[in-house]
Amino acid sequence: MPVPYTLAEIASRLGGCVVGNPDTLIRQVGSLEHAGADEITFFSHFRHKGKLAATRAGAVVLGEGAQGLTVIPRIVCENPYAYFARVSQLFNPAPAPQPGRHPTAHVSPAARVAASARIDAGAVVEDEASIGERVWIGASCHVGRGTLIGEDSKMYPSVVVYHECRIGRRAIIHSGVVIGADGFGVAEEGGEWIKIPQIGRVIIGDDVEIGANTTIDRGAIDDTVVEDGVKLDNQVQIGHNVRIGSHTAIAGCVGIAGSASIGRHCTIGGAAVILGHLKLADRVNISAGTLISRSINEPGTYTGVFPFDRNDSWVRNAALLRHLSDLADRVRVLEKLLGTKDKNG
Amino acid sequence: MPVPYTLAEIASRLGGCVVGNPDTLIRQVGSLEHAGADEITFFSHFRHKGKLAATRAGAVVLGEGAQGLTVIPRIVCENPYAYFARVSQLFNPAPAPQPGRHPTAHVSPAARVAASARIDAGAVVEDEASIGERVWIGASCHVGRGTLIGEDSKMYPSVVVYHECRIGRRAIIHSGVVIGADGFGVAEEGGEWIKIPQIGRVIIGDDVEIGANTTIDRGAIDDTVVEDGVKLDNQVQIGHNVRIGSHTAIAGCVGIAGSASIGRHCTIGGAAVILGHLKLADRVNISAGTLISRSINEPGTYTGVFPFDRNDSWVRNAALLRHLSDLADRVRVLEKLLGTKDKNG
Amino acid sequence: MPVPYTLAEIASRLGGCVVGNPDTLIRQVGSLEHAGADEITFFSHFRHKGKLAATRAGAVVLGEGAQGLTVIPRIVCENPYAYFARVSQLFNPAPAPQPGRHPTAHVSPAARVAASARIDAGAVVEDEASIGERVWIGASCHVGRGTLIGEDSKMYPSVVVYHECRIGRRAIIHSGVVIGADGFGVAEEGGEWIKIPQIGRVIIGDDVEIGANTTIDRGAIDDTVVEDGVKLDNQVQIGHNVRIGSHTAIAGCVGIAGSASIGRHCTIGGAAVILGHLKLADRVNISAGTLISRSINEPGTYTGVFPFDRNDSWVRNAALLRHLSDLADRVRVLEKLLGTKDKNG
Repeated sequence: MPVPYTLAEIASRLGGCVVGNPDTLIRQVGSLEHAGADEITFFSHFRHKGKLAATRAGAVVLGEGAQGLTVIPRIVCENPYAYFARVSQLFNPAPAPQPGRHPTAHVSPAARVAASARIDAGAVVEDEASIGERVWIGASCHVGRGTLIGEDSKMYPSVVVYHECRIGRRAIIHSGVVIGADGFGVAEEGGEWIKIPQIGRVIIGDDVEIGANTTIDRGAIDDTVVEDGVKLDNQVQIGHNVRIGSHTAIAGCVGIAGSASIGRHCTIGGAAVILGHLKLADRVNISAGTLISRSINEPGTYTGVFPFDRNDSWVRNAALLRHLSDLADRVRVLEKLLGTKDKNG
Repeated sequence: MPVPYTLAEIASRLGGCVVGNPDTLIRQVGSLEHAGADEITFFSHFRHKGKLAATRAGAVVLGEGAQGLTVIPRIVCENPYAYFARVSQLFNPAPAPQPGRHPTAHVSPAARVAASARIDAGAVVEDEASIGERVWIGASCHVGRGTLIGEDSKMYPSVVVYHECRIGRRAIIHSGVVIGADGFGVAEEGGEWIKIPQIGRVIIGDDVEIGANTTIDRGAIDDTVVEDGVKLDNQVQIGHNVRIGSHTAIAGCVGIAGSASIGRHCTIGGAAVILGHLKLADRVNISAGTLISRSINEPGTYTGVFPFDRNDSWVRNAALLRHLSDLADRVRVLEKLLGTKDKNG
Repeated sequence: MPVPYTLAEIASRLGGCVVGNPDTLIRQVGSLEHAGADEITFFSHFRHKGKLAATRAGAVVLGEGAQGLTVIPRIVCENPYAYFARVSQLFNPAPAPQPGRHPTAHVSPAARVAASARIDAGAVVEDEASIGERVWIGASCHVGRGTLIGEDSKMYPSVVVYHECRIGRRAIIHSGVVIGADGFGVAEEGGEWIKIPQIGRVIIGDDVEIGANTTIDRGAIDDTVVEDGVKLDNQVQIGHNVRIGSHTAIAGCVGIAGSASIGRHCTIGGAAVILGHLKLADRVNISAGTLISRSINEPGTYTGVFPFDRNDSWVRNAALLRHLSDLADRVRVLEKLLGTKDKNG
C-alpha cells in the first residue's frame, strides 16, 4: 500500500499551490473517470471538462487557467501532466531490489557484480561482464561477455544483451528486448549474400527506457549509440550504426534503418520508418505512420500518410492516383488551349 | 498418430451430410494439393476448382453449391471452412498437460498452483500468482507477482506476464509474448521526459489467442482490457489502456496506440495502425496497412494505402502528389475562365 | 585479438591486386572515418570521396575505377564491398563452440545431440530433437520435440523453435526469434472464431540468418518454407505457408502474410508488407514501406509510399486526395467543353 500524503505535503515536496482543504488525505493517483475520494487525478485538456465536472476524485492537479472549473481540492501548477507524473512517482516509487543471486542464476566467476545487485532465477552473466550497484537482472536475462550495466538499472525478465555493450545508469529495459544482435550487414556476390561480421557495439546513455521486444543492433564496424534520456516504446527496431540524440522519444513499432542519425529532442510517432543513412535535425517531429526517405534539416512536424476512407471511395481515388501524371498532362493541354499560365512549365 | 474416423462418424459428431461412401476411413486433414487417400480436405472458394478436380484426397468438405464439382466422397455443410476447423480439431486435439513441476522451475511458496497444472523447466511463478487447473506454463516463462492464469490456458516457452495481470480461461499464448510491461507514459518537462508510473493492469478474457512476440502493455492508471474470444496474430502491439471488444481478430504487425477502443467483431488487417484515443465501432473492418487517424462510428470496411507501382511510375505520380493543391488551383482557374461550376467553391 | 595479416597475405587468400606496400600489417577492419594505421577499410561509393581523402586507415579495399583516388596502400578488386566482407571474416572468424552441456540445461534423454555440440545454461531440448555437429544452442533456448538443427548452426540466447521443424546447416538465429508458432488460422462461425490446428512445419534451408525477434509461423496443413541462403533482418513476420525463395534478403519489420510466395534473389525493403496468397517472381525488389496487394510477375523495382512533407503541406494535399475523383470529373467536364480528347474515356 502506498504511503498517504496530504495535499499540503505533496505541494511542499513538489511545488504548486493548494486551493481548497490542504489536509485532504491522498493515498493514490487515479483517472478522472475512476478516481475515488482518497485519490488525486489531473486535468490537462479542456476537451475533458465534462469528465472533470463528473469526477469523484478527492483532488485534482490542474493549470491556472482551469482552476475555476471545479470546486474540489486542487493543486494549481504550470505543467499539470508533468506534475502528475511526479505525484504518481511519489505514491508509486520503484522498489529497490533485494540484493542476492538466485541459485539457478549462472554468473561467471570472471564477471564483476556489485554486492547490492540482484540476479534472478535462470539469468546468465558472462565473463568480464560488469553489473553495477543496485542493478536488477530479471529472470532468464542474458548479459553477454564484457557488457557493462550501469548502476540502478533494471532488466525485466528475458532481456538479452550481447557481448561488449554498454548500458548507462537508471536504465529500464522491458522483457523481450534484444540489444547488440548483429546488424543486417550482407554484401552481394554472384547472387548470394556474404555476411559482414558486426564488430561494433551498442552504447546506451543514462536514463534510457526501452519497451518490450524492442531490438537495437550492434554496429557493423563503429558503434550504435543511444544518448541520455531517450525513451523507446515497444517493438522499435534500431539498425546498426544508428545514433539517437538525447531526450528523443520514439513510439511503438518504429523502424530506423542502418546509419540513420536522429537529432536531440525529436519525437517519432508510432510505426514511422526512417530510411538508412539519413540525418534528422534536432527537434524534428515525425507523425505516426510516416516514412522518411530523405534527410530533414529543419525542426518541425513532418507527415506522409495516405488518408483512410471507406473502402469504395479509397478504391476510386487510389486508382486515379496511378494516373495522376496523365491528369496533370490533360490539365496542361487545357491550359495551353486557353492560354493560362502553366506554373509547372 | 491421430485416431481415424469414417465420414459417417465425423458427420455424426459435427453434422453435415455425407455424399458418397460413408465408410471412407480418414486419418488426418490435408490440403487440396497434397492430401492423400486417407485424408480429408476442404473446398471453400470457386477459384480453387482446378485444384478440387485434381485432388487425390479421400474426401472433401464443401458447401451445397459445390457438391456437384467432384465425385469423391464428401461432407456437404453450410460453412465448409468452419466445419473443416472442427474436423481438424477432431484429428488434432490439443494435448492435455502432464501435471507436475520441473525441478529447475522456480515457484514461489506464496503462489497458488493447481494440482493439475504443469510448470516446465526454468519457469518462474512469483508470489501470490495463481495458476488454474490444467494450465501449462512453458519453459523459461515468467508469471509475475499476483497474476492470475485461468484454467486450461497454455503459455508456450518464453512468455512473460508482469505482476497483477489476469488472463482468462483457455488462453493460448505463444512464445515471446510480453503482457503487462509498462505503457509508454512520459510527460515532458524542460525538454526531458518524466516517467509516469504505470499502475494499471492487463485484463484478458476467456478464449483469447495471442501470437508470438506480441506485446500488450499494462494501463497507466486504469486497465488495458482484451475481451473474450479476441484473436491476436504475431508481433501485434497493444498500448496502455486500450480496450479490444470481444471476438475481434487482429492480424500480424498491427499497432494500436494508447487508449484506443476497438469494438466487437472487428477485423484489423496486417500492419494497420490505430492512433491513440480513437474509438472504433463494432463490426469495423480495417484493411491491411491502413493508418486510422480518427474515430469510426459506422460499421464497414476502411482503407488507406498508397497503391504500389513500378518504381518509375511511382516516382512520377508521387512527385505530382506533392503538388496536388496546385493542380486543383489550376483546374479552378480553368473553370472560372469557362464559367463551369466549381463544386468545391 | 585478431591475428594480423599483411596486405600480401590477404590478397593471396582472397584475390585482388595490391597497390602500395604489400607488407603493410593489418590487424582489423575499420570504417573510413575511424580506421587506424593498422586497419583496413573499404571504398564503394563515390559520394564518400571526401572521407577517403581524409582517412587514416592503413589500407583500403576499392575498385579499379577508384584506385587513383588515394595513395595509401590498397587492394584493388572487382567487388570491394564483398571483398571487404571476406576480409572482415578473416579478422573476425565466428568462434567454434566449446562442446558440452551446462548443468542447468535440460536435454531429453530421447534427443540426439552431437558430441561436438554445445548447450548453454537453461536451454531445453525436447524428445526426439536432433542437434547436429558443432551446433551452439544459447542460454534459455528451446528446441521442441522432433525438431532438427543442422550442423554448425548457432542459436543465440532465448530462441524458441517449436516441435517438428527443420533448420539447415550454418544457420545464425538471433535472440528472441520464434520459429514454428501456430499460424493465424481461424474460421468464423456465428460471429466467433474457431481455431484451425496448425499441423504443418517450418522448413529452413542452409546458410539462413534470422534477425532478432523475427517470427516464422508453422504451416496450417502443409509447410512454411525458407530456402537456402535467405537473410532475414530483425522483427520480420512470416505467416503460415509462406515460401521464400533462395538468396532473398528481407529487411527489418517486414510482414509477409499467409501463403505468399516470394521468388528467389528478391530484396524486400524495411517495413514493407506482402499480402497473403500473392506470388512474387524472382528478382523482384520491393521498396521500403511498400504494401504489395497483388502478385508481381516481372522482375523490377516496385514502390508505393506516400511522400512525406511538412505537416501543413501534407494536410492540404491529403485532403485533396480524398477528392481526386471529383477533380478528375471536373477536368473531364472542361475537356468536353473544349473538345479535347479525354484519354480516359
